[in-house]
Amino acid sequence: MKITTKVEKFTSPLYLESGRILEPYELIYETYGELNSDKSNVVIVTHALTGSHHAAGTYEGDRKAGWWDGMIGSSKPIDTDKFFVICVNVIGSCFGSTGPLSPKHPSSESYRLKFPVITVTDMVRAQRILYDRLGIHKALAIIGGSMGGMQALCFAIEHPNFASKHIILASTYATSPWAIAFNKVAREAVINDPLFKDGMYDPKEIKNSGLAGLSIGRMCGYISYLSPDTMEKKFARDYVSTDGLYELFGRFEVERYLDYNGLNFVNWFDPLSFLYITKAINIFDARRNFDSLEDSLSEIKSNLTLISFSSDLLFLPCEMKTIHQTMCEIGKSKQSKYIEIESSYGHDAFLVEIDKFSHIVKEALKER
Amino acid sequence: MKITTKVEKFTSPLYLESGRILEPYELIYETYGELNSDKSNVVIVTHALTGSHHAAGTYEGDRKAGWWDGMIGSSKPIDTDKFFVICVNVIGSCFGSTGPLSPKHPSSESYRLKFPVITVTDMVRAQRILYDRLGIHKALAIIGGSMGGMQALCFAIEHPNFASKHIILASTYATSPWAIAFNKVAREAVINDPLFKDGMYDPKEIKNSGLAGLSIGRMCGYISYLSPDTMEKKFARDYVSTDGLYELFGRFEVERYLDYNGLNFVNWFDPLSFLYITKAINIFDARRNFDSLEDSLSEIKSNLTLISFSSDLLFLPCEMKTIHQTMCEIGKSKQSKYIEIESSYGHDAFLVEIDKFSHIVKEALKER
Repeated sequence: MKITTKVEKFTSPLYLESGRILEPYELIYETYGELNSDKSNVVIVTHALTGSHHAAGTYEGDRKAGWWDGMIGSSKPIDTDKFFVICVNVIGSCFGSTGPLSPKHPSSESYRLKFPVITVTDMVRAQRILYDRLGIHKALAIIGGSMGGMQALCFAIEHPNFASKHIILASTYATSPWAIAFNKVAREAVINDPLFKDGMYDPKEIKNSGLAGLSIGRMCGYISYLSPDTMEKKFARDYVSTDGLYELFGRFEVERYLDYNGLNFVNWFDPLSFLYITKAINIFDARRNFDSLEDSLSEIKSNLTLISFSSDLLFLPCEMKTIHQTMCEIGKSKQSKYIEIESSYGHDAFLVEIDKFSHIVKEALKER
Repeated sequence: MKITTKVEKFTSPLYLESGRILEPYELIYETYGELNSDKSNVVIVTHALTGSHHAAGTYEGDRKAGWWDGMIGSSKPIDTDKFFVICVNVIGSCFGSTGPLSPKHPSSESYRLKFPVITVTDMVRAQRILYDRLGIHKALAIIGGSMGGMQALCFAIEHPNFASKHIILASTYATSPWAIAFNKVAREAVINDPLFKDGMYDPKEIKNSGLAGLSIGRMCGYISYLSPDTMEKKFARDYVSTDGLYELFGRFEVERYLDYNGLNFVNWFDPLSFLYITKAINIFDARRNFDSLEDSLSEIKSNLTLISFSSDLLFLPCEMKTIHQTMCEIGKSKQSKYIEIESSYGHDAFLVEIDKFSHIVKEALKER
């Protein structure tokens, strides 16, 4: 599979939903497979909160493959022998696209808290401009889970002529107060960490000494990504064998797991990006600028495939079902397919239970 | 209704499950109604993590009634015209019973992190000694929700001749990794707050300037006490009207609610008690010292009434059901009744949906 990573620079302003502008800006993206001569084999994959453009394959010297490696590749469900797959790092993120630590032109200093609030609409708008530059004016499909699903839905509503299929997993049409509450705890933990210094932290310092707030935020995220069932299977009530049961800070294995992943998170994610992207997730509402969900979904010309997971506690299956039911109510039942996958893996199922839904994605990509 | 609040001091040591001792110690408790001449009308109410001995009635000058005021009183489900109700503040707590901020005898300095880890077994043992001193050697019933339910179950298993009925709400037989994970986030937030100072914080200082870590811990608790449904009904996606949607720190109403309750928590609860009691909850396992749940439940001689709530995401209905099923499997089906209450209020239902279960409690108290 041919993988390329590229950065595109844009000097004309990106007009944001907030009324502010981003200028200049850069987008980093990865492609898998080859673009055919009439550019008719493009499949766009959109990433979640902490995801990146590195969706598949393994970089030289790296141990870990891209975040959806099981889905994207030669003879895989999103088959790179057929499709030219693109994944773009969203603006506001910290993997190479313009974000809060990028220099605020013309100065060489980072935006920090002066970075504008970005929305899912903005993420999508920026991508659309990139595709335009690449000469891609049509995509076969746009696929994403979680915040990636929000982007896919946003593409369907706001750019209805661009792609003919939108496959949305473990997502919603508007972030619920329940999900906002999880983000709240995580965001407060980051903001209140003294090393955060109102956003003026030293990136090296927080990597070296850890940013407890970001670790705690990640732990809180983990709860919302998993489910009581997964935790029971994964950890039960196992206790760390070297810890004493009656030590105040003795730990269960589930606590060690959260510690490990929380502490590690600081090494590969940035606290300001975390704040900006969770903000974008919180304020995502496909009904904004429309009178109702009916109204916004009326814009859609493509086919939707909506995949939810029974144990997803972050974006509940009923939220995905509402999209489907609304499509049916406005006479678009032929354009909408809803599947609830039985899974005990919670929200994370869209990343780990590929075997359970890959055939649906494959099928959806095949249909005309 | 006659309310009295008393403190009992004990100078003989309390032998803890950990092998350590607590000596001396005090217990604060409240009683409602009058003890009859043969002391046969005692009903014990046990409290949850942040609860106290103040279960009912309103103190002079106070606006808020006790935490189960709807349940306890004249002509209420736990009728103080008939019953003499006792509620004891658990050891480790911060409302008057001996806890981490109590002086470590013979010095006048507080225990702080030198306070021993206590367990639900210890909380119950301490209460049993108190009842003994009060000349109460039998109780009609022990009733509690959440950690109060753990105490009730522990009473039933470890003191099988003491009470003839145990009514357990929204609880479990062993804390799940899922619940431990919620506590983990909360505990980490407390521990990592610089004002916590490894437990050597100044109680006045943290009340004045706030202990963000404890607030965040409380917010995390709130998520686990509520449910997606309650949050939707209570807040939907309402945004604080004076905040800007595109301000990074602009807030949804659900965030304002969490802020308010989180910040307020510091004024009435102590961070060390929070750590010790969540530890006791984490390590609660009715199977400890037994070969299995069957084995431990075999000890029970009383009648169990097990009440769970459909949307409880902290202690899932299936956990309560397991207690009932196990009772049936060991031939004690006549001693066990299980009821799942339909509710959208999550774990908090045992505090707020009294109308839905009060008749069950009333009935259980009536039965011979």
